[in-house]
Amino acid sequence: MTDVYTLGEPLGVVSSGRVRHESEARLDVCGPEFTLAIALARLGHRCAYLGKVADDELGARALTVLRGEGVDVEDMRVAEGARTGLLLRESRVGRELAVTHYRTGSAGALLAPGNVPIDRIAASRMLHVTGLTAALGRDAQDAVRAAVTAARNAEVAISFSVEYVPELWPSVREAEEVLGELACESHLLFLRQDELDLVKPALTPEREVVVDRGAKGASVRADRMRYDVQGWQVPVVDTAGAGRRSRPDTSAPRSTASSPRNACTAGRC
Amino acid sequence: MTDVYTLGEPLGVVSSGRVRHESEARLDVCGPEFTLAIALARLGHRCAYLGKVADDELGARALTVLRGEGVDVEDMRVAEGARTGLLLRESRVGRELAVTHYRTGSAGALLAPGNVPIDRIAASRMLHVTGLTAALGRDAQDAVRAAVTAARNAEVAISFSVEYVPELWPSVREAEEVLGELACESHLLFLRQDELDLVKPALTPEREVVVDRGAKGASVRADRMRYDVQGWQVPVVDTAGAGRRSRPDTSAPRSTASSPRNACTAGRC
Amino acid sequence: MTDVYTLGEPLGVVSSGRVRHESEARLDVCGPEFTLAIALARLGHRCAYLGKVADDELGARALTVLRGEGVDVEDMRVAEGARTGLLLRESRVGRELAVTHYRTGSAGALLAPGNVPIDRIAASRMLHVTGLTAALGRDAQDAVRAAVTAARNAEVAISFSVEYVPELWPSVREAEEVLGELACESHLLFLRQDELDLVKPALTPEREVVVDRGAKGASVRADRMRYDVQGWQVPVVDTAGAGRRSRPDTSAPRSTASSPRNACTAGRC
Amino acid sequence: MTDVYTLGEPLGVVSSGRVRHESEARLDVCGPEFTLAIALARLGHRCAYLGKVADDELGARALTVLRGEGVDVEDMRVAEGARTGLLLRESRVGRELAVTHYRTGSAGALLAPGNVPIDRIAASRMLHVTGLTAALGRDAQDAVRAAVTAARNAEVAISFSVEYVPELWPSVREAEEVLGELACESHLLFLRQDELDLVKPALTPEREVVVDRGAKGASVRADRMRYDVQGWQVPVVDTAGAGRRSRPDTSAPRSTASSPRNACTAGRC
Amino acid sequence: MTDVYTLGEPLGVVSSGRVRHESEARLDVCGPEFTLAIALARLGHRCAYLGKVADDELGARALTVLRGEGVDVEDMRVAEGARTGLLLRESRVGRELAVTHYRTGSAGALLAPGNVPIDRIAASRMLHVTGLTAALGRDAQDAVRAAVTAARNAEVAISFSVEYVPELWPSVREAEEVLGELACESHLLFLRQDELDLVKPALTPEREVVVDRGAKGASVRADRMRYDVQGWQVPVVDTAGAGRRSRPDTSAPRSTASSPRNACTAGRC
Amino acid sequence: MTDVYTLGEPLGVVSSGRVRHESEARLDVCGPEFTLAIALARLGHRCAYLGKVADDELGARALTVLRGEGVDVEDMRVAEGARTGLLLRESRVGRELAVTHYRTGSAGALLAPGNVPIDRIAASRMLHVTGLTAALGRDAQDAVRAAVTAARNAEVAISFSVEYVPELWPSVREAEEVLGELACESHLLFLRQDELDLVKPALTPEREVVVDRGAKGASVRADRMRYDVQGWQVPVVDTAGAGRRSRPDTSAPRSTASSPRNACTAGRC
Repeated sequence: MTDVYTLGEPLGVVSSGRVRHESEARLDVCGPEFTLAIALARLGHRCAYLGKVADDELGARALTVLRGEGVDVEDMRVAEGARTGLLLRESRVGRELAVTHYRTGSAGALLAPGNVPIDRIAASRMLHVTGLTAALGRDAQDAVRAAVTAARNAEVAISFSVEYVPELWPSVREAEEVLGELACESHLLFLRQDELDLVKPALTPEREVVVDRGAKGASVRADRMRYDVQGWQVPVVDTAGAGRRSRPDTSAPRSTASSPRNACTAGRC
Repeated sequence: MTDVYTLGEPLGVVSSGRVRHESEARLDVCGPEFTLAIALARLGHRCAYLGKVADDELGARALTVLRGEGVDVEDMRVAEGARTGLLLRESRVGRELAVTHYRTGSAGALLAPGNVPIDRIAASRMLHVTGLTAALGRDAQDAVRAAVTAARNAEVAISFSVEYVPELWPSVREAEEVLGELACESHLLFLRQDELDLVKPALTPEREVVVDRGAKGASVRADRMRYDVQGWQVPVVDTAGAGRRSRPDTSAPRSTASSPRNACTAGRC
Repeated sequence: MTDVYTLGEPLGVVSSGRVRHESEARLDVCGPEFTLAIALARLGHRCAYLGKVADDELGARALTVLRGEGVDVEDMRVAEGARTGLLLRESRVGRELAVTHYRTGSAGALLAPGNVPIDRIAASRMLHVTGLTAALGRDAQDAVRAAVTAARNAEVAISFSVEYVPELWPSVREAEEVLGELACESHLLFLRQDELDLVKPALTPEREVVVDRGAKGASVRADRMRYDVQGWQVPVVDTAGAGRRSRPDTSAPRSTASSPRNACTAGRC
Repeated sequence: MTDVYTLGEPLGVVSSGRVRHESEARLDVCGPEFTLAIALARLGHRCAYLGKVADDELGARALTVLRGEGVDVEDMRVAEGARTGLLLRESRVGRELAVTHYRTGSAGALLAPGNVPIDRIAASRMLHVTGLTAALGRDAQDAVRAAVTAARNAEVAISFSVEYVPELWPSVREAEEVLGELACESHLLFLRQDELDLVKPALTPEREVVVDRGAKGASVRADRMRYDVQGWQVPVVDTAGAGRRSRPDTSAPRSTASSPRNACTAGRC
Repeated sequence: MTDVYTLGEPLGVVSSGRVRHESEARLDVCGPEFTLAIALARLGHRCAYLGKVADDELGARALTVLRGEGVDVEDMRVAEGARTGLLLRESRVGRELAVTHYRTGSAGALLAPGNVPIDRIAASRMLHVTGLTAALGRDAQDAVRAAVTAARNAEVAISFSVEYVPELWPSVREAEEVLGELACESHLLFLRQDELDLVKPALTPEREVVVDRGAKGASVRADRMRYDVQGWQVPVVDTAGAGRRSRPDTSAPRSTASSPRNACTAGRC
Repeated sequence: MTDVYTLGEPLGVVSSGRVRHESEARLDVCGPEFTLAIALARLGHRCAYLGKVADDELGARALTVLRGEGVDVEDMRVAEGARTGLLLRESRVGRELAVTHYRTGSAGALLAPGNVPIDRIAASRMLHVTGLTAALGRDAQDAVRAAVTAARNAEVAISFSVEYVPELWPSVREAEEVLGELACESHLLFLRQDELDLVKPALTPEREVVVDRGAKGASVRADRMRYDVQGWQVPVVDTAGAGRRSRPDTSAPRSTASSPRNACTAGRC
């Protein structure tokens, strides 16, 4: 049996201190669900990750890393002829992180409802999806919906992290519609403070909601109670695999209190 | 007055020894016309480069490098809201070079006939274009054609390097048509041995033709004579800016005898 | 079903260009069976690896790497309170490789006959063992013997690589006895030219024998025929995971013709 | 004449940020008495260091470093056929330092009473020994005792630093016995706060005692007075040669107020 | 038209963490006017830089960097047979920066009044000179004076940064005389708090004076008003190109509030 | 007793692959006599080195390295207020080595006859001097002469290596005069083939002469016989400390057959 089943797009990420001047760079693999699956696996949970990679070396790397960390990659698909997406990330001292997305037509965005294994999700204790994957295109969005439907039908707990990236959506309105709907399906909802308006209809008492308040910590609302957790001031070593970091509006140093795995170890999954 | 006017797409290039395993990478800027312009400028020629970059840090880097090397960048355009294209290049010891193109919708491909300054080309001694730029899409192809027409009308010598990259063309037939036509317009033609068939109609006696025969050197056919030059066995330090290297079918170590600049210093430009 | 089952000691390896002068070093994991299992897995074979690591970070790394590469690690054991062995390797330009073994009392040497799963070996197509593991102590030697017995009883093909490391044996005589006996049990025998005397009784016509002749290539004797293969002059990038390299008497550049996987792809496994 | 005579085990140390994931590492030489001797030599004191290294490159490095810094190495011994000990040290951001000892049967532990030059110690102004060397085995412990006896007989001041490393002792009781006895022989005693109980009998008024209180600084008790010194908040660059750092129970950032050399410059040596 | 015209000596700078122990170093180009010109060019101002470099690779690098950043280098001179000056800079953690000057007889010091283009300065909106260039020798000092005279005659605003480096002057008295005179010619005066005495006569109400008060920030006195600006606590990444850093008496972290560009964007240039 | 006594200038050396483009560099210490002393010390000979360094970190490094390698530095002098000389060396692949000397007024050139200890040289078995030190100025040249006179008077064997660096001499004639004279005083003479004309009068039968013929090897003429030694084709790792490499006219790869130590181990010293 799987503890947490998740799906998303595995990406390469090129990190540079100063894109304009430096030749030194790092090449890693990342993705918000990717990172979550590995983190939970390290904590001892059985995780399965579904995603599409290309039959290129970046795709092979994503698979090798996931498998090495003990994440179940049985459902992973390899799309021939496509390419695995790439991010170029600049993190200059004292500046906001800047990310350029090279994911147009990437293998990850080809994930389709037909790739979603209903039975495997039904046999999990929790499904975790994000709004980032829903933003990758019609196919990926339908895959997220198919997974959510499968979980709901099988009474599997649904965890949803909003992960709103403006440049990946045609309009705020469309984001609002899709993200709001997914949020309403979830039992456990993760979001940043600036995403509260996007998913307003989902902020009802019966839903467990974790609000990431940046450096100030996180708030958890569950069972009609609110718990505030202070941010942990950890030194940020590398943010390569941390999905939420890939947006310029997140301030550093980052609170870790609101990460799904904390809620998870505390609660339902 | 400009000695050589050229146009193309400036790209970022991420180089990795083993994409699947290594975190160390390098970030540079490249492009076959980009490299040629810099090489000729270092040799003392006045070169001008036309291309589109995005208003991102990679684009700023391409501009900084060209300007720093003394290439005339007056005609360069900055496309707002686009992104500068990127290559991911793996050069494993003993393996063929593998390149993944992340240039879908890149700023460089937005180069259009309207960006081509007829008068500036007319005031140059030579125009150099490549089949790579003609492969970037309708707009870029028309820009190459506009430049060639401008040169022909002003009786400016035309240099054409075939640079056939199969994956950038819809079909061999289309490549053959476009590349053959451009080759027929040129006075000086550069190509690899495996590209001879693509531009057969252009292999006429009145045209100066330089054939890159890989490790075996190069052949120059001019004035109905054929000169063979042995390859120079130079240690390959880095191939980041060498456009021709970006195809897997070129064998290493590479002959430098056939590079445009040699022909150029020997002859017409 | 498993194609190749193998067992050995996973080790950390610290590589330095000049131990006496340089601070830069690399930390990897290695072991001759370890490397073989990964190489075969990359070629598409189903491999299983049995070995003991400590509950330290080096041990976790060995496990992560094997699992990431798709090697079956179900039988791996973690020995609490022990430490995973370490090699310090100096590869100076123009000098013989020098290796210092820090494996006294290492977790890997604690592998015992009781850890050897008879049924799993019986269900494999080939067993691969080396004389290196047999040199680690009484327990490890008995484990190798138990595996060989299990394979013989189940009529599983046995591959044996001599891997004689003088400093790990109490005397040449004892090495000769143990290695000779194991060689006689094998169907496929790998050895270096300087190991021919050690396993003389095993050099009979019915056994497939692959002799590594260093830079000169390799000889394969099978079905009463001898095939000579020239060495491939490959650039040596890193020798970290190549077990045979850890002896000072191997000359560089190394022939790759005699590596087990070649024989393997050509033949029985 | 020698200002400070000291004896101990010189070790190699491999430093890694994350043993489980990173290939980059550093190779240095270290040891608490090793570091002290160099620090005092840099401050202008004449120091002599006694220890055994193997006839390997690590041993040659330890000798080269000591000699280069002006430490008197005339008494150093080279043990043929042994190996110089090694530490593998992981210092992850936000984690406690983790050290694995690869010193079983190392050359340094072979230091024996017979290697201790009575006359040279008698001709020094101070002898400095640590409990770490006393923990290396019977021989090394007897060598420490022989040095202390030589100093006492010649009325040479004795400095003792407790340096308790649990995993090197068979039992707390035995550590307590040996360390307590050595502490009682000393005129100047260095210890961490958590070592106070181990050497209780030595905490008498006539002995100068320096207590390392971690980030809080240090206390010096001398001439029946207690002086408190605040910790200096220095950036920790590298801890490779700092003996005390090699225990996981020391918190960072570290106070430097309690290091022997400060007491030393203030006082007797 | 040029916004800011400046002149100075471009230098190579070798940066090392610990000159005594480390082999890793960095090689960059620097100079206070060099850095200012680049900073202003990045902010969108048209800057011109005048200086002499040798016909060596360091000189070529200085030219390439300036040109790449868009600084007008039309007036730059290349001195054959000379060498471009070099600094060796050690920045140890917790220590004051230490700089050794290798500029005796460097190309930069050969800048002479005859190299100063009166018309180009007259056609600029502001001239910026420093006391550092005035300290390089008779020729360079006269060049600075010639530039100042040209600016004054053409009613071009004069900006002067004191940049007193004791070891480059024969005596304090001579520095005082020259620097005081230049300060009196300026409309905009930059100095450190410890340089106030050197240029006392220039501290009159009609002059805009910016005092760098180190970590405490800066004071600007203009129009008989005094404005205090707090220091910005920025992480110091690299100080290679920051001229003022090359003196040991500047404390870190450095305030950036007093940099010429701030005054510049706020005011006259 | 000293086997070989030598004197020279210890220098820092900054090595760069491409001074014009790269930030990565290395900082080492070097000098032809410096390197020889260390090489002979590693081979087990007792060597003493005389030279002047500044009281800066580079000087401290030169002393630390020599002392660490076991070279006798008792006669070394530290010149206060001076600076230790520096070389900037570019070794581009496929290009001749280019060296810029930053040694004007360096501490090393201040070596004077008064610093030469007559008795210490008289008590040595061999004196080794080079023409490089004689080129540093009047003082250093006189110091070399004083050493040679001391050796001759005490019947100590004199080894002289020509080491002609054109840019350090006012004229060829002066070099010829000084180098010729020193060569005539020597018993053992080392020179490159292109230096034969400079020291013609010294090429007499009673003198042992070693001619470095570059890649072709070396010729030794001794006892009226000529022995030819083929060059050893060793990979050149780093040339930082190899004095002869600092001239652009030496071709790579370099033969090691003619190095002093070989002659030395074969013969008199």
